[in-house]
Amino acid sequence: MRFDTLLESPADWMHRGQSHGDIVVTSRIRLARNLVGHSFPGWGRKQENEATLRVVQPVVESLPQLGEPFSRHLNKLTAIQKQALVERHLISREHAARAAGSAAVMNRAQTISIMINEEDHLRMQSIQPGLALRESFEVLDEIDTQLEQALEFAFDRQLGFLTACPTNLGTGLRASAMLHLPALMLSDQVNQVIQAVNKIGLAVRGLYGEGTEALGNLFQVSNQTTLGDKEVEIIARLQKVIEQIVNHEKNARQKLLSDNTTTLCDQIGRAFALLRHAHVMPSKEALNLISMVRLGVDLGFFPSEFAVTLESLLMEIQPAHLQIRADRKLPTSERDEMRSQIIRDRLKCLPEPDISKALGGLHNCPPNNDDA
Amino acid sequence: MRFDTLLESPADWMHRGQSHGDIVVTSRIRLARNLVGHSFPGWGRKQENEATLRVVQPVVESLPQLGEPFSRHLNKLTAIQKQALVERHLISREHAARAAGSAAVMNRAQTISIMINEEDHLRMQSIQPGLALRESFEVLDEIDTQLEQALEFAFDRQLGFLTACPTNLGTGLRASAMLHLPALMLSDQVNQVIQAVNKIGLAVRGLYGEGTEALGNLFQVSNQTTLGDKEVEIIARLQKVIEQIVNHEKNARQKLLSDNTTTLCDQIGRAFALLRHAHVMPSKEALNLISMVRLGVDLGFFPSEFAVTLESLLMEIQPAHLQIRADRKLPTSERDEMRSQIIRDRLKCLPEPDISKALGGLHNCPPNNDDA
Repeated sequence: MRFDTLLESPADWMHRGQSHGDIVVTSRIRLARNLVGHSFPGWGRKQENEATLRVVQPVVESLPQLGEPFSRHLNKLTAIQKQALVERHLISREHAARAAGSAAVMNRAQTISIMINEEDHLRMQSIQPGLALRESFEVLDEIDTQLEQALEFAFDRQLGFLTACPTNLGTGLRASAMLHLPALMLSDQVNQVIQAVNKIGLAVRGLYGEGTEALGNLFQVSNQTTLGDKEVEIIARLQKVIEQIVNHEKNARQKLLSDNTTTLCDQIGRAFALLRHAHVMPSKEALNLISMVRLGVDLGFFPSEFAVTLESLLMEIQPAHLQIRADRKLPTSERDEMRSQIIRDRLKCLPEPDISKALGGLHNCPPNNDDA
Repeated sequence: MRFDTLLESPADWMHRGQSHGDIVVTSRIRLARNLVGHSFPGWGRKQENEATLRVVQPVVESLPQLGEPFSRHLNKLTAIQKQALVERHLISREHAARAAGSAAVMNRAQTISIMINEEDHLRMQSIQPGLALRESFEVLDEIDTQLEQALEFAFDRQLGFLTACPTNLGTGLRASAMLHLPALMLSDQVNQVIQAVNKIGLAVRGLYGEGTEALGNLFQVSNQTTLGDKEVEIIARLQKVIEQIVNHEKNARQKLLSDNTTTLCDQIGRAFALLRHAHVMPSKEALNLISMVRLGVDLGFFPSEFAVTLESLLMEIQPAHLQIRADRKLPTSERDEMRSQIIRDRLKCLPEPDISKALGGLHNCPPNNDDA
């Protein structure tokens, strides 16, 4: 598969998920595996890593779940192409920094992605829209079982699967969900939630994992420990916490809608307006404005089809995606212009929101002063 | 004439003037006159002022230039009604603070307004759109001549017309123009211009005269001295300076258009967008956003009919106008909501701007990245 074909294909997880799709953007499971008798990638020399790759890649490529996969040695991808894969959450930033001896393999729908020789020999991920941790795990569990028939994984009776970093030891499993929490953010409750989640041993991070900012009101919640529990237990515990956060967010939305209707209408209206008419749109501003419009979709201010447009816009407007489209390196100023143009064009096709009408008789937004 | 009838009539000067109407919003001439043998209003007791009023008001009301005038004792107007007249520049803030013994008389087109017992017995103003100082003066000169036939004005051979405050002595004339200078503001040149104008003895003030802020990039330029020169000389000198400022503003607009096209498009686009979609719109923000859209009209980004809508919006969205429409006192928060609704409704009828198209092939705004 050509790189462009991959990028032009909309990822399956850009569609809204069945379960809590308004708040849980995606659910993701990742498994780490290593081969017996091969050095870990960070320890192995180039030749050893290339040898590992030669063993692993054909097995991965032949997985029936991947269909006709996109499969590339990282030294066959440009820096911008690798960055675009990071923007799509298909490879990690760490993997993008690698070249010879590493590869990335994924299906066209971009729901399954396997990094070869990242920190471990194999880092497999399954990503799905909405709250679908169990479903994502089942996909990966099956792949894991199939790979085990062809590859001998490093496994210790007591410790479980061996990994380059001890934080992944045992199950090698990281389960995470990307949550959209604008109402908790607007009502200043999000830090409270993060602290509570941290206390029970789960991690909360920004849009691109560890150490990144929570742009666009997007937060990633994941398990910290991989050892001592079964996979299904880790997932069940995370699922329960996510359901609680989802409820908090839903309550916060209801409260905003009933107590701060006008402010909410104003913020959503302004966000839509700026996306629709600005001619310079920096990345951070775009993410935050799109977040507000997304909230507007969830609250029924905009037609629900709008959600998919916003989701794919979030991808398209990222720096590497823009530069691939332009087919050259772009300075920030040109990216900001190009981003604004893409957003304007995409939103142009959509009907104008009538926020007041959307709220109907129930919510008085804005008060109809014509009668006064 | 009922007060509501007056307020519902669009003022003639809201239309765009023939001469430099894109930059000179209005030209205004004011004459101060006092009666022989009557105390100045600030010195006279209530009874004396009422006696003056009884002499002056019938003469003023019978001026043929006023048609069937709106004429009211100030104690017959509510505080909000008086504030609305201030917002329309028909009476001064000082006059609005008065009650018994003072009156306001004006024509329906609101081009002529005569305050009785403000600081002087008579303060007459003629206001016209565009650069029309001479025309405005001629209107007032004729009225002055007619009034002189019925009233004996206090006049000194050496000093000229006597006034309550020595700064008005002589001609009693104040000539001023309201200038819209967004490009000088955006390119940080406006203070330079103000300093130069001050140096040659002219005053530059904000939207509502002395001591007020320059909201909406609107500046009022007027003569400081009234003594020692003939009326036509004062006007000619002011006219010359205004023409120079107009040229500076025109050059600044051209320069912005050629050197900062994208930023300009962005600011105009964002201003239109926020006016079109916000649900809370504070007064200051509204004035500044309308100023940017007005610049957009002048630059051809919007149809020129748009100008009248903006001009009348500037009136309608002011605090007293809103409260008269609502028929009750409104707290700031409600005014901000009502203002946003009026603006949204008015702009809804207008076609969407296509800034890029408006700029045509000449200006590359924004760069068409589809081809890249």
